[in-house]
Amino acid sequence: MDILNIIDKKEKGEKLTKEELQYVVDGYLDGTIKDYQMSAFLTEIDLLGLSEEETIDLTDIMLKSGETIDLGFNNIVDKHSTGGVGDKTTIVLAPLVASLGVKVAKMSGRGLGHTGGTIDKLESIKGFQTSMTLDKFKDQVNEIGIALVGQMGNLVPADKKIYALRDVTGTVDSIPLIASSIMSKKLASGASSIVIDLKVGSGALVNNLDEAKELANLMVKIGHNNNKKTACVLTNMDEPLGYAIGNSIEVIEAINTLKGDGPKDLTDLVIKLGTLMVAAGLNISEEEALEKVKENLYNGKGYEKMLEWVKAQGGDITSLPIAKHSKEITSPKDGYISKINALEIGKLSRKLGAGRLTKDDTIDLTVGIILNYKVGDFVSKGKSLATILYNDKELTNEEILSCYEFSEQKVEKPKLIIDIIK
Amino acid sequence: MDILNIIDKKEKGEKLTKEELQYVVDGYLDGTIKDYQMSAFLTEIDLLGLSEEETIDLTDIMLKSGETIDLGFNNIVDKHSTGGVGDKTTIVLAPLVASLGVKVAKMSGRGLGHTGGTIDKLESIKGFQTSMTLDKFKDQVNEIGIALVGQMGNLVPADKKIYALRDVTGTVDSIPLIASSIMSKKLASGASSIVIDLKVGSGALVNNLDEAKELANLMVKIGHNNNKKTACVLTNMDEPLGYAIGNSIEVIEAINTLKGDGPKDLTDLVIKLGTLMVAAGLNISEEEALEKVKENLYNGKGYEKMLEWVKAQGGDITSLPIAKHSKEITSPKDGYISKINALEIGKLSRKLGAGRLTKDDTIDLTVGIILNYKVGDFVSKGKSLATILYNDKELTNEEILSCYEFSEQKVEKPKLIIDIIK
Repeated sequence: MDILNIIDKKEKGEKLTKEELQYVVDGYLDGTIKDYQMSAFLTEIDLLGLSEEETIDLTDIMLKSGETIDLGFNNIVDKHSTGGVGDKTTIVLAPLVASLGVKVAKMSGRGLGHTGGTIDKLESIKGFQTSMTLDKFKDQVNEIGIALVGQMGNLVPADKKIYALRDVTGTVDSIPLIASSIMSKKLASGASSIVIDLKVGSGALVNNLDEAKELANLMVKIGHNNNKKTACVLTNMDEPLGYAIGNSIEVIEAINTLKGDGPKDLTDLVIKLGTLMVAAGLNISEEEALEKVKENLYNGKGYEKMLEWVKAQGGDITSLPIAKHSKEITSPKDGYISKINALEIGKLSRKLGAGRLTKDDTIDLTVGIILNYKVGDFVSKGKSLATILYNDKELTNEEILSCYEFSEQKVEKPKLIIDIIK
Repeated sequence: MDILNIIDKKEKGEKLTKEELQYVVDGYLDGTIKDYQMSAFLTEIDLLGLSEEETIDLTDIMLKSGETIDLGFNNIVDKHSTGGVGDKTTIVLAPLVASLGVKVAKMSGRGLGHTGGTIDKLESIKGFQTSMTLDKFKDQVNEIGIALVGQMGNLVPADKKIYALRDVTGTVDSIPLIASSIMSKKLASGASSIVIDLKVGSGALVNNLDEAKELANLMVKIGHNNNKKTACVLTNMDEPLGYAIGNSIEVIEAINTLKGDGPKDLTDLVIKLGTLMVAAGLNISEEEALEKVKENLYNGKGYEKMLEWVKAQGGDITSLPIAKHSKEITSPKDGYISKINALEIGKLSRKLGAGRLTKDDTIDLTVGIILNYKVGDFVSKGKSLATILYNDKELTNEEILSCYEFSEQKVEKPKLIIDIIK
């Protein structure tokens, strides 16, 4: 085999065998296939696609390129979000479903670009440890039913290397490459069921609904092919999720949500994803799961589990850090809010210091933006549209206002949950 | 501008502006655009094509990436071959048209892969110098009407760097990239008219006739756009050209052809290309040019010009070196030859030492393969099909015979000249 022959075969539209895909991934990892050759191959995939079978093969090859975690439990449900602005869902969801007896043994990521990461957000809790040994991780899951850490072990090294190249060669948006990247990591981390929150819209990786459905179907197919219960929920990410965008302020919003007092969109999403996770994890009907989820969201048991979890990982939730200064951005007119651009709000939050542009940037966990209204709300001129929490870097009124559009006519609240594929 | 935005724009099928193409070429030359990013961009071009306008723009940008040669004459005709097996045409053609008063000031290449190069072949002439200063080059053209060297000056550095990358990323076969590569080099070398011998067939860069026509039209269009008379002759390269494949043995065949005693296909090709070159260079009709070309091919004046030319470049043509050993490959049966695979013959010649696999290989100028029959000829069992001239590396009978196919029915001689586009 030879990378040039494989590139040529792909160009001709012929299907690649699993052996050929294996040759490419192995060669790229051991350096015999160069960056510029892999880039040509990834560009071909971006432009010509991969068949379902090729995508399943590629996922399996990537999955097996490194360690896989065996947690020793069989009712573990994993949840993945493709990343959005203001997405603190995991921080609510993980303790909520754990409080119902579903095992949560989860690895999460850090923020990059305009989206934040769960691990950064949790690190705004004083003392919270986001790394531990695999043994301690398993023990904690065994004892309290929940543990959440950053990356652990050498999982899916092929994805790490390929993703870094995709990031600089314009091949991040390929549906089969996204599917194999997400699913190889999920499959390597040892869950028996997987629920994916696939964000669709201006602030998301995928902003076209047809492509989102294609991606969802592909991921569900890959999951089933690996004998995992898999569901994919397509959710709107045109405006930020909830009101808070930052780190510590998102944890505060997550706590309020677990106390039954969260934003409607975030609460609805937690209930939907929680229902799917609990149904899968406890092997019960969705109707039954929905009842249980609602119960523990409003009876305080979800919040109790959060306290237990944070304590187990060394955190002190009693006081969360907040930036020194705040500033109100007032509405320039009366009207209904018709748009809050999630992508731009994410970039502005990063500009305040809440996010990273490159992996080496350090972030300020205390700053961020709190929206005071959402799309569909009526706002009067002079009322505060958003509150900026800041330290050394500021934002102008114009920067924030440029994310907004207004309408004199009533505007429908956007539908949060677009579709469920399972 | 940003390479990722340009890659994205191309992926969406949008036309690129000349400024964007300039940004890519400049960035690649100065290193701000990396190999892996250029490879992604070239792969997009390979798969999605370029518009005629984009190809013309790209050619112009590449042309202007380095020096251009101004020879100070205005009736210089350049000839380019896309490379074939046994292609010694230039060695016949250059002195022939020079003997008719057309100025030949030509740069030629070395062999790579399964095809040989004119410069290597000429170096089999003892003492022949293939490099000289630009001043000496101009003087020689002025004095005797002909000079031929290897690469001179820093012409089209963008093509050098891009071609090296195409070679290792499976993007050699893109029609617009071939067109811009060939034409930028031809335009940089200062000729006023350009005749291209575009080989089509198993032993050629392009083996599909439709693609060859597309390429020919594109090159002619680029030439006209730059105010150069441009013609493109599509010629068959399914079997080798002439009988000799090697270096010194090809020079011998070229000399015989200039003496009016060459293989029919080579002679026909020299007459056709010569007619186009002389018509363009002397600004006369093709009928008139044809008469002149035939005259000097058979009256010895072409050969006299060759002697003058070789002497001017320090060469001694009286004895050409030949390999120590020879071996006859006999026909296993009676029959008509229906195929002699040019690509495979080229590879076998390289295996004997006559060609290079990588740029750093040294070659044996004395070895090669002499065909004793061509496609359409009848051969009797036991007759010598081909003669192998070798030193340290040998070929087996089977290796040579695997290039041949036979037929009991009479086989038509293949048509050498397929089409002319101008």
